[in-house]
Amino acid sequence: MTREELIRQIFKKRSFLCVGLDTDPSKIPDHLFSESDPVFAFNKAIIDATKDFCVAYKPNIAFYESLGKSGWESLEKTLNYIPKSHFTIADAKRGDIGNTAAMYARTFFKTYEFDSVTVAPYMGRDSVQPFLDVEGKWTILLALTSNPGAADFEKQELVLGKRLFEEVINAAITWGTPENLMFVAGATQSADLQIIRKLIPDHFLLIPGVGAQGGDLKAVAEAALTKECGILVNASRSILYASSSENFAEAAGSEARSLQKEMEVLLRDFPSV
Amino acid sequence: MTREELIRQIFKKRSFLCVGLDTDPSKIPDHLFSESDPVFAFNKAIIDATKDFCVAYKPNIAFYESLGKSGWESLEKTLNYIPKSHFTIADAKRGDIGNTAAMYARTFFKTYEFDSVTVAPYMGRDSVQPFLDVEGKWTILLALTSNPGAADFEKQELVLGKRLFEEVINAAITWGTPENLMFVAGATQSADLQIIRKLIPDHFLLIPGVGAQGGDLKAVAEAALTKECGILVNASRSILYASSSENFAEAAGSEARSLQKEMEVLLRDFPSV
Repeated sequence: MTREELIRQIFKKRSFLCVGLDTDPSKIPDHLFSESDPVFAFNKAIIDATKDFCVAYKPNIAFYESLGKSGWESLEKTLNYIPKSHFTIADAKRGDIGNTAAMYARTFFKTYEFDSVTVAPYMGRDSVQPFLDVEGKWTILLALTSNPGAADFEKQELVLGKRLFEEVINAAITWGTPENLMFVAGATQSADLQIIRKLIPDHFLLIPGVGAQGGDLKAVAEAALTKECGILVNASRSILYASSSENFAEAAGSEARSLQKEMEVLLRDFPSV
Repeated sequence: MTREELIRQIFKKRSFLCVGLDTDPSKIPDHLFSESDPVFAFNKAIIDATKDFCVAYKPNIAFYESLGKSGWESLEKTLNYIPKSHFTIADAKRGDIGNTAAMYARTFFKTYEFDSVTVAPYMGRDSVQPFLDVEGKWTILLALTSNPGAADFEKQELVLGKRLFEEVINAAITWGTPENLMFVAGATQSADLQIIRKLIPDHFLLIPGVGAQGGDLKAVAEAALTKECGILVNASRSILYASSSENFAEAAGSEARSLQKEMEVLLRDFPSV
């Protein structure tokens, strides 16, 4: 999906919501275990209930991978079920030297046809470039994450006068463009979101941490919303597990709708499509 | 496998060689494509030819993952075929927030029963701890990698007076012990290997970059060998693809044997088992 098309979907739906599919068999309602593929049955119901309120889906690859082959089957079915109007993110946080990075890019862009994949920057340019080199696909690079561990290294100050995540951003914008490169910036880091937005006025940010992790949607929008929206805000657990009973999908839809309504207000001055 | 058992295997075999199983279908000899699982057939022949000369095998997960479900099947068969006397490393370079990291740990320690997994440190302690918390298993944390991109962030100097990789090591040794934590340190970085060894006299180092990447075995040993050996040196492409014809396994065995012979000389003053 192109940047232009993504922006069009956001303005059309009055939503910049991404639903994270962190589907954990230990949290799926019991009645789904009569289905042949409970993980896919859960995702299908979640997608049906939320697709009108979100513009993107982000399967968290760890949850599928940990189930072995059957998990990859559930992932494939899920990916095929997501409407073509929605941007897809493989949340995989891969990162390795050049020839290995090219293999990871193949996994998520060819074997599974995601629009984008999250990538870890630690190993530097040659671990990121093979993802950027795939035409028509997106790399979403970790910059400043939403977890407590962000303080351990990401926020460390460099002698260059920047913190590590700022240097990651400064370097990476010379490797990719706003048409193929986004950054992860946590909702729990709203003071730093403003700094990040100044560094990169045109790049989309994928912002996790709203919901279960406690980030505030309004603070995020104030810090990072641009004329073209420029943000995707992810919620996972707060939507998926809004209810653990048979009405889980209805509860998920209601939670997604409530976030979309908040987003509609934040997007009130934006053009309609 | 415990640290004690790993050291015993090293002294018994007079080898600290790890064979990287970066098995690429585009590089497998043609005649193997008559087999039902060419990737496994290749790995099986490589393992048969090299097992007497190495103490560890390191499947590079990207190469299996990129093949979809059949790749995970080949990986599983390969893992089951590796003798129990050999230390197994899932080279996966995973790293994500706590609950997701726990899922990745489940993948490589429970769904697939590897002894160890490589982990990226960018997201800090809570992205690493869930791996360390699994009893009887090893976390191998990226410190200073062998690729050119290591200069982009890993070698950046912090205002603390350390470079990022040194701070990663200093922090991580408070999270794990020499019994469950190793570090990746590239063979192409031999000047810094000495600095790393001073920081961590007791932790094992996994050292890639000998062979195709140009690292020098003797320089590595001079910088990082300890009384308990303390290093695993990995070679992948130089062994796997020593020959592309029907004699590929013989050529791989010969390459592994030649590395083992060099190691035997470097270990000459070490006790026999």
